[in-house]
Amino acid sequence: MNLILLEPPDWLDASHARLTDARRLQHLRDVHRAQPGDRLTVGALDGRIGRAELLTLDDAEATLRIEALDREPPPPLPVHLLLALPRPRMLARTLEHVAALGVKRLTLLHTARVEKSYWQSPELRPEKIRQHLLLGLEQARDTRLPEVAFETRFKPFLEDRLPALLANRRGLLAHPGMPAACPRGIDDPTLLAIGPEGGFVDYEVERLLESGFEGIHLGERILRVETAVTALLARLF
Amino acid sequence: MNLILLEPPDWLDASHARLTDARRLQHLRDVHRAQPGDRLTVGALDGRIGRAELLTLDDAEATLRIEALDREPPPPLPVHLLLALPRPRMLARTLEHVAALGVKRLTLLHTARVEKSYWQSPELRPEKIRQHLLLGLEQARDTRLPEVAFETRFKPFLEDRLPALLANRRGLLAHPGMPAACPRGIDDPTLLAIGPEGGFVDYEVERLLESGFEGIHLGERILRVETAVTALLARLF
Repeated sequence: MNLILLEPPDWLDASHARLTDARRLQHLRDVHRAQPGDRLTVGALDGRIGRAELLTLDDAEATLRIEALDREPPPPLPVHLLLALPRPRMLARTLEHVAALGVKRLTLLHTARVEKSYWQSPELRPEKIRQHLLLGLEQARDTRLPEVAFETRFKPFLEDRLPALLANRRGLLAHPGMPAACPRGIDDPTLLAIGPEGGFVDYEVERLLESGFEGIHLGERILRVETAVTALLARLF
Repeated sequence: MNLILLEPPDWLDASHARLTDARRLQHLRDVHRAQPGDRLTVGALDGRIGRAELLTLDDAEATLRIEALDREPPPPLPVHLLLALPRPRMLARTLEHVAALGVKRLTLLHTARVEKSYWQSPELRPEKIRQHLLLGLEQARDTRLPEVAFETRFKPFLEDRLPALLANRRGLLAHPGMPAACPRGIDDPTLLAIGPEGGFVDYEVERLLESGFEGIHLGERILRVETAVTALLARLF
């Protein structure tokens, strides 16, 4: 937690906030070893970053006086990530990684090799997803919460929603065996498609290429989804 | 497990192997849903990659007939990774990531912000480290086991062993706030230093820069060690 992210319920008035959740209180006590009088980095959810003085800290609450919110959060990556739904435990970590790396739009997609049961996982509940995204923002000192959408049927997504997403973005399909190496240091608005463990099936690859994606690869190594997501984002942007 | 990595005890003779460990048997049954007659990708530890026919599979063992070992494993990254010892759970995942990404030399270093207790963790036992590295190799279809060294004292390492490591490598120190952005797509032999959660302390940064490292950064976002390691390797090489 490199930033205390203040959500609307945390605010007492325009310059004071109160934290009452066990997770953040414990982190302030045990990791920061914070004391009243300490200056801490804070940010307003979807707003600016600044600093606050810790006024009180006990087992039930922490109170903060906000001194300034005078900096913009770091710039987002110019990417909309289209990710085949990973298995639940990997989804949790992947949400933290992508939030920390600056992804602001994420669509979780059903594909042939996504197990149907994954869509019933408690990890997909809005409050769970939000919690993982907040952890990523707190880690990276960002404040802008990513938007997450679900597409539970491949073909309707491809036919009805994909054309609009690709209308003003460069489509990149990351898939082993594609002809082009992953480009480096681009700044185009990009729609980046990444398959599940085991990859997109041939039919899906063909349809995505027909729809306007360029196929790219990261070399002959096969990476886990969470490793591939970080590696692709770091190399592309 | 995209590759069955055959270790010396697995070999029955020059063209047959037997697996008896529960992890790989379960993976063959439950993930691959393998049947006798199936062709599987195999590799000899520290050797070549090829294919084998599954002859038998039951709860106690799998037997394989090696048909060919005719391909070299993917090329390694030209990097020696110098990593402040992460906390045990993150170490486990980081070992898998770096093995999958092609790191072949890893030195785990004590620094001021590494908790001393981490050095007593069971995760540092050679067999545990080896197991995580093997998982990374199996994932990436690689066969060459990385070498892992421990440096439990910063100053003796810096004074006695670092000069030789830097003699024929480009030293890159990844640290927030360094003046230069992380370079992209280099192929120099590199010694890449990455600090612990919370970073290197100022004294350590100064000493590493004096020793010949170039300071580089990944932008204003603060990443977890496991995310930073993958992002740096993907951007650099």
